[in-house]
Amino acid sequence: MTEKKGRQTVLLYNRPKIIASAGVVGKKEGEGPLGKEFDRVFTDGRMNESSWEKAESALQKAAIDTALQKAKLEPEDADMLFAGDLLGQSIGTTFGVRSLGIPFAGLYGACSTMALSLGLAGIFVNCGAANRAVAATSSHFCSAERQFRLPLEYGGQRPPQAQWTATAAGAAIIEGDGHGPAIESMTFGRIRDYGVTDANNMGAAMAPAAADTISALLNETGQTATDFDLFVTGDLGAIGSKLLVDLLKEEHKIDLGSKHKDCGTMIYSIDEQDVNSGGSGCGCSASVICTHFMKKLLSGEINRMVFIGTGALMSTVSSQQGESIPTVAHAVVLRGV
Amino acid sequence: MTEKKGRQTVLLYNRPKIIASAGVVGKKEGEGPLGKEFDRVFTDGRMNESSWEKAESALQKAAIDTALQKAKLEPEDADMLFAGDLLGQSIGTTFGVRSLGIPFAGLYGACSTMALSLGLAGIFVNCGAANRAVAATSSHFCSAERQFRLPLEYGGQRPPQAQWTATAAGAAIIEGDGHGPAIESMTFGRIRDYGVTDANNMGAAMAPAAADTISALLNETGQTATDFDLFVTGDLGAIGSKLLVDLLKEEHKIDLGSKHKDCGTMIYSIDEQDVNSGGSGCGCSASVICTHFMKKLLSGEINRMVFIGTGALMSTVSSQQGESIPTVAHAVVLRGV
Repeated sequence: MTEKKGRQTVLLYNRPKIIASAGVVGKKEGEGPLGKEFDRVFTDGRMNESSWEKAESALQKAAIDTALQKAKLEPEDADMLFAGDLLGQSIGTTFGVRSLGIPFAGLYGACSTMALSLGLAGIFVNCGAANRAVAATSSHFCSAERQFRLPLEYGGQRPPQAQWTATAAGAAIIEGDGHGPAIESMTFGRIRDYGVTDANNMGAAMAPAAADTISALLNETGQTATDFDLFVTGDLGAIGSKLLVDLLKEEHKIDLGSKHKDCGTMIYSIDEQDVNSGGSGCGCSASVICTHFMKKLLSGEINRMVFIGTGALMSTVSSQQGESIPTVAHAVVLRGV
Repeated sequence: MTEKKGRQTVLLYNRPKIIASAGVVGKKEGEGPLGKEFDRVFTDGRMNESSWEKAESALQKAAIDTALQKAKLEPEDADMLFAGDLLGQSIGTTFGVRSLGIPFAGLYGACSTMALSLGLAGIFVNCGAANRAVAATSSHFCSAERQFRLPLEYGGQRPPQAQWTATAAGAAIIEGDGHGPAIESMTFGRIRDYGVTDANNMGAAMAPAAADTISALLNETGQTATDFDLFVTGDLGAIGSKLLVDLLKEEHKIDLGSKHKDCGTMIYSIDEQDVNSGGSGCGCSASVICTHFMKKLLSGEINRMVFIGTGALMSTVSSQQGESIPTVAHAVVLRGV
C-alpha cells in the first residue's frame, strides 16, 4: 500500500528493498577518506573514452553493471530505470544506459537526482508499477567543468565557497522482497529560490530547500529528529551544511544535534585535497549513499536515516542572464536491516 | 490497483482522470490549422520577457495556470508536478514553475516529455502517491535554436528533413475522480539507437523507438491496432511518420491502417508555413494533445487512443563528438468520456 501523507510525503508500507547497490569513482575520490569503500576506483578519468562526456557515460554504466552483478542479475531482469545527470540533455545518462534496454524514465534533478531516482523507484516497486527498478546517476569533474564553468585548459580559479564536482556514479536495485535496506517514504521537495545568484555558492542556495523538505517530512509524518539516527545531505558542502543546521534551528525549530552529515564533506579530505567547501555533483551523494551508508544500513549500525538529495536547478544560460538559483531537495527515509 | 503487464506496460485500473488541460502557443502555431483550438495564442514570442529562455518559462507557467484555472484550482491544490523541457538543465521548467510551490519531480525526455509526465502523473494518482498531479512541458523555437543549433541572427538554412520547434506548452491536471478522459495505461520506452547521426533528421531517428513501444504495448496487453481509434505520435514529422507506419508493418506485423496521426504534421500547414518536415519540440505534442485531442476525448468522438511521445536524447555536444542519436518513446492509452 502507498499513502500520501500531507502534501509532499509518500509512505511506502510494502517497504521495497534495496537488494544491491554500487558506487564507482575516479582517482581523486579513491584517494579520499572513503576510498576503500567504493566498488571500483578508476585511475584513468577518461575511462579509455575519447571525451569527458563519454567517460561519464561509461562511469554511470559501470555503476549500474556493478550493482546488477552484485545482485546476480542481467539488465533484462530489471523492468524500470530512473536516471539522470548534470549535463545538458542528460547525455551522461542517455549514452550510458542506451545499451541496457531497460524501460527508461529520464530525470533532471541536478545533484538531487539520486534521491529522486531512489524515491521514484521505491514508489514504483511499492505500488506494483515495477517489479525490479534501477535508480542511478553520475557526475564527472571534467564534463561538469566544461558544462558549467570553463574548459579545464583555462585553469580557472575557484573561490573558497565553491564545491568540487565528484567524478563518481551510484546505482541501486530495488525490488519488493529480498534482503536489504528498506525505503520507508519519499518526500518530494518544492522548488525554493532565496535569490542567491553566486553559482559558486550552491551550498548556500540549496540549504533552504533541504530545510524545507526535512521540515515537511517531520511535520507531515509526525516524527521528530530523535526518530532518526542520521540526516545525510548530498551535497551542501561545509558552508551549506552549517547553514542548514542553523536554518532548521532558527526557522523550523528543528534541532538535528550531531545527527547531520553531508556526503560533500565526507568524500574528500577538505583540508588536504584542495576542494574548498567540499564535493558536489549527482555522483557524489550517489556513490557515498550506495556504498558507505548502505553498508551501515546492512550491518544494522544505522537503524533509520534520511537521505536528502539537494539540487541547484540553474544553468550557465540562466546565470549569465542574471537569474538567481532555484533549488530543490528530496528526502528518502531508509531503514536498516 | 496498479499492475505491471510484461516488462514495459503499467495498467491503471483506477482510471485516473484528466480533469482539465490547456495548450498555449506562439504566433506561428496560432496561425496554423489548429490555431483556434488553443487556449491562448501569444503574438509576442518574447512574452514580455528579456530573453527567449525566460519567455519559454513564462509559456510553461501560462499553460499550467490556464489548466488550473479551468479546473477552478490553485497551485496549492496540487500535490505533485511532473515537468521538463528541452533546454540544458531544464531551465524552461525550473524557472517557469518555481513560484508555484508544487512538490516537483523534474524530467528529461526531450520531445517525449508530455507522454512521460502524463504517464507518471497517472501512475502516482492511480496508486495513491498523489491526490492531484500536474503534468507539463514546453518548448520555444528561439530558445531551442540557441540551445541546439545557431543563434537566430545567424540565419542558418534548414534542410528539408528538419523539423520546426514549436513555441508551445501544454499542461494537464490528473486526479482520481472527476470528469474527464481517463489514463488507462502507460508503456515506458526503452532507448533505441539505430545509428542515425543527422541531428536534422530526428523523425527518422525516433521512428524505431515509436515502433518498438507501440509493439510492446500491443503485445504485452494482448491488444491489436483495431482496439484503438487512433495512434497519435508527437513528433515524428512527415518523414518519420511514413517510416513508423512502414516499420510497424514490415518489422512488427502491425498495420495501423489510417489510424496514425502525428502532432508535428498537424500543428502547422507544412506546405504553407515553411516548416519542412513539420513541428517538433516538447510543447508541440503537449499543446495538441492537451487541446485538440482532449476535446475529442471529452466529446466522445474518440473512444480510445494511444499517445506516443517520442524523444531524441542527444545534445549538441554528443553530436559534435560524432555520436548517433539515442531515442525513446513512451505510450499513454487515453479513454474518452
